[in-house]
Amino acid sequence: MRKVDVCLTPELLHLYEVERRVVVIVDILRATSCMTVAIANGVEKIIPVAKLEECLALKENGCIGAAERDGKMPEGFDLGNSPLAYLNNAYAGKTIAMTTTNGTQAIAKSKAAEEVIIGSFLNKSAVVNYLISQPNDVLIVCAGWKGKVNLEDTLFAGAVADGLKEHFEIENDSVIASATLYNHAKKDMLTYLSSCSHVKRLKNLNIQKDIEFCLKEDQYNVIPVLREGALVAMEKMELSKVVE
Amino acid sequence: MRKVDVCLTPELLHLYEVERRVVVIVDILRATSCMTVAIANGVEKIIPVAKLEECLALKENGCIGAAERDGKMPEGFDLGNSPLAYLNNAYAGKTIAMTTTNGTQAIAKSKAAEEVIIGSFLNKSAVVNYLISQPNDVLIVCAGWKGKVNLEDTLFAGAVADGLKEHFEIENDSVIASATLYNHAKKDMLTYLSSCSHVKRLKNLNIQKDIEFCLKEDQYNVIPVLREGALVAMEKMELSKVVE
Repeated sequence: MRKVDVCLTPELLHLYEVERRVVVIVDILRATSCMTVAIANGVEKIIPVAKLEECLALKENGCIGAAERDGKMPEGFDLGNSPLAYLNNAYAGKTIAMTTTNGTQAIAKSKAAEEVIIGSFLNKSAVVNYLISQPNDVLIVCAGWKGKVNLEDTLFAGAVADGLKEHFEIENDSVIASATLYNHAKKDMLTYLSSCSHVKRLKNLNIQKDIEFCLKEDQYNVIPVLREGALVAMEKMELSKVVE
Repeated sequence: MRKVDVCLTPELLHLYEVERRVVVIVDILRATSCMTVAIANGVEKIIPVAKLEECLALKENGCIGAAERDGKMPEGFDLGNSPLAYLNNAYAGKTIAMTTTNGTQAIAKSKAAEEVIIGSFLNKSAVVNYLISQPNDVLIVCAGWKGKVNLEDTLFAGAVADGLKEHFEIENDSVIASATLYNHAKKDMLTYLSSCSHVKRLKNLNIQKDIEFCLKEDQYNVIPVLREGALVAMEKMELSKVVE
């Protein structure tokens, strides 16, 4: 039986097997939600980079520069980290260079994987169905907050784990813990998360609309997938297996 | 307001502030349960050491040698890691040198703390009441399993966090997550834990009785506390504050 595991923060990633696995990167507020919306709205390619300087360099070479540090957009970039900015095909056909506090760092650490895909509540069922349809073990990697565990990424890991439970063997306790938390919170995630540290941080930045949007399930049937260092839309052939 | 935080595995401890805090070490299956029972049953002193060789050296100098690796007792020691071995004052007055896979490692990493105390379900209310009675911020450190998060230590962290919530400010999401998990599981922890990885591991070692014992709440009104490198019973004067 294939196996599923959950790594609650990239700080623990060295304890997990990444090779020969599909790794699902999770940064609900807001990097992987952004990536999902961008790809669903026709962005051709997202180049995730760990450092601000790399992102600026790509911007100077013609990419759209999207950057976030501590919830805010640093100077000199075109976009911050709001998924709403990509709606209505605003950047269709463009290449985005993106760096964020946690999410793009988690991608950088997962490059040895068989395949790296992007998960968010917005494409939850697409992710679950794709994972069931493919043959590899799965590792869900929560981006967390500066190395610490956060609640919103853990809830999403639990949502995916819960969706996989009939088809995959559970490897470690973090899978059980996150699934329990998701089932506890799923009826009203916004209220459950309202006490959590990152939501408090973001509320201070006046992005309540972003938060509400990022918690909506199954808005898009797309999966951003890492191909040669850039996130692109998963091929329709792969996704079509998933529709049944 | 004083603050409480939960570190879900010693692998993340470098992200947390330890200085000027009371650190609660948690290794429910079975190191901190053992320590609680031992001190409650008259053991004078437990010297926690990280390495087997240190433990053997202390044994050669007249200590009782207690050791566990991967759930089993390595050769050459007097005791393994079963709390039941200390019942009926079996080692009253003795000094125990102890090394375990996870628990004693967590203690070794926490030595910069204001005070290090030992928590288990067996002395849960003593720990909660003491923490409320004293002036410092609190960090609960789960020993986990070889760096990964485990469920039984997380549940206990949640039990303590839940007991402190009226008196302490919650610092990070791991506090909320662990309290939610404890409240979900508390009516029947044995059943909830039966699917978790460490309990499965221990079941294979035929120590079901140990597991059931370690999940009993409030059997002892004692707190093992680290003083000059050894765990001793917290002074009665300190504990007596707690009885009200």
